[in-house]
Amino acid sequence: MENGPVPVDTKSTVDDERTVAELEDRWRRALADLDNLRKRYARELERERAAERARVACAWLPVLDNLELALDHAQRDLSHDSGPLAQGLLAVRDQAIVVLAGLGYERHDETGIPFDPERHEAVVARADDHVPPGTVIEVLRPGYGDGDRQLRPAAVVVSADTPGA
Amino acid sequence: MENGPVPVDTKSTVDDERTVAELEDRWRRALADLDNLRKRYARELERERAAERARVACAWLPVLDNLELALDHAQRDLSHDSGPLAQGLLAVRDQAIVVLAGLGYERHDETGIPFDPERHEAVVARADDHVPPGTVIEVLRPGYGDGDRQLRPAAVVVSADTPGA
Repeated sequence: MENGPVPVDTKSTVDDERTVAELEDRWRRALADLDNLRKRYARELERERAAERARVACAWLPVLDNLELALDHAQRDLSHDSGPLAQGLLAVRDQAIVVLAGLGYERHDETGIPFDPERHEAVVARADDHVPPGTVIEVLRPGYGDGDRQLRPAAVVVSADTPGA
Repeated sequence: MENGPVPVDTKSTVDDERTVAELEDRWRRALADLDNLRKRYARELERERAAERARVACAWLPVLDNLELALDHAQRDLSHDSGPLAQGLLAVRDQAIVVLAGLGYERHDETGIPFDPERHEAVVARADDHVPPGTVIEVLRPGYGDGDRQLRPAAVVVSADTPGA
């Protein structure tokens, strides 16, 4: 510190220097916060959009499930002439599956593949001599979507060890 | 400006004061920007969420339309025994309407009300002696949602002036 005849001014200068450094620091922090906020927001926006998409798509799954249940029932009962209506509704069912795929949620109703806890929910185990244990032998309710974008796993029947095998 | 024996210091002090004021100003601006950005993001997030909701809900409307077309067709043709299937599918149709209402998109298929260009799209005009001109006399395709949240207007038949009236 210089020895000057104007100690007040000198002190003020030192204070000002401190203030300048502090203010510059604050300003830079605020700029960094601004930048972080922008980046965070871009990520959040995409995440929120995806969450909303999944929420709305999920709301429709019970409608599609019931449409399929009604169709399955009608097809087992084809002694009645529900043929033309059932045909039309199969097309509606397919259309719904295309809508879901278009939103990023592929349908999964494959059988004969190994059980995968990420994609399957085993609701029944059944002895089956024709396939290795742990194979999906029937899909009771299809799954939709994969990984992060999974709406729900497929509910399946899995082959169990045959007794005595 | 004071007359002091340390002119360099004095100048520096003045510069520092300017810098302090400028930096403080910058810092405050950055904070204000941060605050504005936060508010803007909150609004934008809600708007984007609503847009995604509408987009996904809209994707399902053709599915519901086709389900209804198939049902209408079957009901006109009830000489055939598509009864049980049609019954089941009416329930599915109602379920879909409840899903849409739950997402904020009420169904609009009222007749006997005045034509409203905000909510109706007139696709046919028909002479009708029993109602005033400009009345919705038939809904060809229901509308969903209101105001900002309208997914689509209802496509309607509107009563025209009767010739000679």
